[in-house]
Amino acid sequence: MDDKKLPNRQENFSEWYNQLVLRAEMADYAPVRGCMVVRPYGWALWENIQAALDKRFKATGHVNAAFPLLIPQSFMTKEKEHVEGFSPELAVVTYGGGQLLEEPLVVRPTSETIIGTMYAKWIQSYRDLPVLINQWANVVRWEMRTKLFLRTLEFYWQEGHTAHATEQEAAEHTQRMLNVYTDFAVNEAAVPVLAGQKSDSEKFAGAKATYSIEAMMGDTKALQAGTSHFLGQNFAKAFDIKFLDENNQLQYCWTTSWGLSTRFIGAIIMTHGDEQGLVLPPNLAPYQVVIVPIYRTDEEKALVIETVDKIVSGLGNLRVFVDRREGLTPGFKFNDWELKGVPLRIEVGPKDVQNGTLALARRDILGKEGKRFIPMAGFEQAVPAVLAEIQANMLAKATKFRDEHIFEVSNYEDFKDVVENKGWAKVWWYDDAANEAKIKEETKASLRNYAQTEGEGVCFYTGKKTNKQVYFAKGY
Amino acid sequence: MDDKKLPNRQENFSEWYNQLVLRAEMADYAPVRGCMVVRPYGWALWENIQAALDKRFKATGHVNAAFPLLIPQSFMTKEKEHVEGFSPELAVVTYGGGQLLEEPLVVRPTSETIIGTMYAKWIQSYRDLPVLINQWANVVRWEMRTKLFLRTLEFYWQEGHTAHATEQEAAEHTQRMLNVYTDFAVNEAAVPVLAGQKSDSEKFAGAKATYSIEAMMGDTKALQAGTSHFLGQNFAKAFDIKFLDENNQLQYCWTTSWGLSTRFIGAIIMTHGDEQGLVLPPNLAPYQVVIVPIYRTDEEKALVIETVDKIVSGLGNLRVFVDRREGLTPGFKFNDWELKGVPLRIEVGPKDVQNGTLALARRDILGKEGKRFIPMAGFEQAVPAVLAEIQANMLAKATKFRDEHIFEVSNYEDFKDVVENKGWAKVWWYDDAANEAKIKEETKASLRNYAQTEGEGVCFYTGKKTNKQVYFAKGY
Repeated sequence: MDDKKLPNRQENFSEWYNQLVLRAEMADYAPVRGCMVVRPYGWALWENIQAALDKRFKATGHVNAAFPLLIPQSFMTKEKEHVEGFSPELAVVTYGGGQLLEEPLVVRPTSETIIGTMYAKWIQSYRDLPVLINQWANVVRWEMRTKLFLRTLEFYWQEGHTAHATEQEAAEHTQRMLNVYTDFAVNEAAVPVLAGQKSDSEKFAGAKATYSIEAMMGDTKALQAGTSHFLGQNFAKAFDIKFLDENNQLQYCWTTSWGLSTRFIGAIIMTHGDEQGLVLPPNLAPYQVVIVPIYRTDEEKALVIETVDKIVSGLGNLRVFVDRREGLTPGFKFNDWELKGVPLRIEVGPKDVQNGTLALARRDILGKEGKRFIPMAGFEQAVPAVLAEIQANMLAKATKFRDEHIFEVSNYEDFKDVVENKGWAKVWWYDDAANEAKIKEETKASLRNYAQTEGEGVCFYTGKKTNKQVYFAKGY
Repeated sequence: MDDKKLPNRQENFSEWYNQLVLRAEMADYAPVRGCMVVRPYGWALWENIQAALDKRFKATGHVNAAFPLLIPQSFMTKEKEHVEGFSPELAVVTYGGGQLLEEPLVVRPTSETIIGTMYAKWIQSYRDLPVLINQWANVVRWEMRTKLFLRTLEFYWQEGHTAHATEQEAAEHTQRMLNVYTDFAVNEAAVPVLAGQKSDSEKFAGAKATYSIEAMMGDTKALQAGTSHFLGQNFAKAFDIKFLDENNQLQYCWTTSWGLSTRFIGAIIMTHGDEQGLVLPPNLAPYQVVIVPIYRTDEEKALVIETVDKIVSGLGNLRVFVDRREGLTPGFKFNDWELKGVPLRIEVGPKDVQNGTLALARRDILGKEGKRFIPMAGFEQAVPAVLAEIQANMLAKATKFRDEHIFEVSNYEDFKDVVENKGWAKVWWYDDAANEAKIKEETKASLRNYAQTEGEGVCFYTGKKTNKQVYFAKGY
């Protein structure tokens, strides 16, 4: 870490983000254009995200597997919309073992095609259904404008692929996984997402319907943080995924796919980060607690370290890091861990030991307000309780910020003012792809997703009656 | 599962293996030549391998990270021996986003070059050392003759990459990780490997010294199951990894790398498998216990399932699967789980419930000898104890098999007989790369690694005095 201040978050959110990712050692630029290295601190956060999601996938009946990275180019062309969507983004292997390949291989941008091919082989009967498989993988999409975590040529994600006997079951599963993402985002990452269907213009290439969770970043821009696709029978027909039903009739399967990626790390940084750096939610933070021992003499050191060791063993179930680095001032260490967003800091000095107290400093509330002393007795219960407070406060704060920056508007002038200067616009909307494109062209705001709504209103753009409300916002 | 018998393991070990991998649903052939799909049952085994290794890596101070899949072609050429070793095996991306790339990108076959480039950027001072990073990743090597798990174009592995201030520290770390692999293989996989240095002819391209763990398969062939490389300053000089030492002098780092891959799944299958199928070590098996409920009437079913549920909750710390499939006979289920190598089967029928006993059947000892009844009371302790017995027995059995198939020989005639018909030859050996090549050419047996040995002897091939003993064997 160096001592320079971060760029001003209010004035230059984008540069604040770029610098923060580098200086907190979350990621670094790789020598290949648009690729990133996820550094150990960033990867530890991703591993906690993985664990939180994987637990939910297993609880909903999924198993993990691994499908190949390389896909014959011809596979990509079998589903018409899919190939149109992904062709411009492909990385293509043309040489292998020194020989020009007969058929080029694409590096997977997503795996519907290769997984569909295997499902066609594995599924014969209704008894084989549903198939509920997830994979944790790297994928490559040849993006032109890149940004660490948010949009890189290679990124890491999970992609779930399921096959079902009926339309209803597949549709329900699409919704189930959207709910899993929402639950994860809200309760683990403290990111208060809005879940809903995307418009036809914004759906996944080859899907019948795409659902997303949308998060509001600290600059009020929207970020699509996870998607769940109902694929109908499109891929089943393209890849011949069929089964004999209970009446011995051959039927096409109904399939779904859903993914959440390292992009979510960007969502966490931009939802919670502040002028001092990262603010990580306790449930996912690589270190939930950092302990900074403070001493001048060897005698003091012995005293302090004895207490530190007691705290560490008393907090055995938490992720605790003791900053034992020599030759650095406590102030430097405080700044360093604030930059890195550790939720709770415990300072232990000789006075604290004598008084039988611990000095706690919350990352979510800086300055005096976030400091408190607790008695050493009972710290095993007190510290987890403070972490739970922090987790809850982070969600409440982000939810408040989000709600304060969503505005219901009923005409295009107000709409333009909102999406340009204030945040998200929530509007009654009569579906029309041409209007949607025109609005995006004129305002840079895109339709994020449909709101959960009831009742009827008047479309802000066309004046037509409608029962749909949607969110529009500039997005990442 | 189908009902066909596996190919005869004694007569056609290779085909026995191929069929077993497919029929136990460990893996499947992908539509791309030489690539595999790791199916959920195989991937669950890999996840347990990962957990067992990752725990050991963390305990020895390592952190995980993720480096890019795509490497500029020019990077591969910076270390002379490295490029010679890997050039023939590369998959090369020449197109991205529809454009011919200015510089082709290779899909990583291993990551010394890209990680070395980042280390050069990150390491400045002795205070930054050691750097101890591991990554779990997929890699691609363009192999011509492939076999599921053992040699595929794409495979999954971990690769550790460390940088140190001194030669001694790097050399010690190389050894430490070799010991970690040995400990994992012996105590988790029950695969009694022999650890030692490889000959110069067999070392990693660019390493100063390579160490391996070598395992004996059920057909007595050798399999290299993990490697640890001391890279000296070769890569540090090629990639400019330097640091200021405590005297403010600029020095090159000393580096190591080490890897273990999905090949190890093949080692487990070929070490322990038998005529009936897989035999998985309890410490790594996806399911440690399978429960087969047996009943004819609804009344019996209710009775049996009540007990089954009790067992499941009593074995909460174990990986237990209850085979609730309807319409299949118990005999069919027994065969199925024997094929899949679940270490312990518990059969629960109405009689067992009445008698207050459980019928256990061990996978490592088939037939009557492996069956026993235990009282229902205390099964929570008894079942884990049986699993520990199985784990120990599998290691003892494999060790006995290995030791019975290693022969010390002192002349070339006996040597040829051993490596052709009996197993491994352990011989006194005077280093000579030309002789080593000639022996490999004539007998197909390669020098696996140096034995841990003391004293002196006479080289079986040259008659020269030497203090080294080595293992020769045909290998995978």
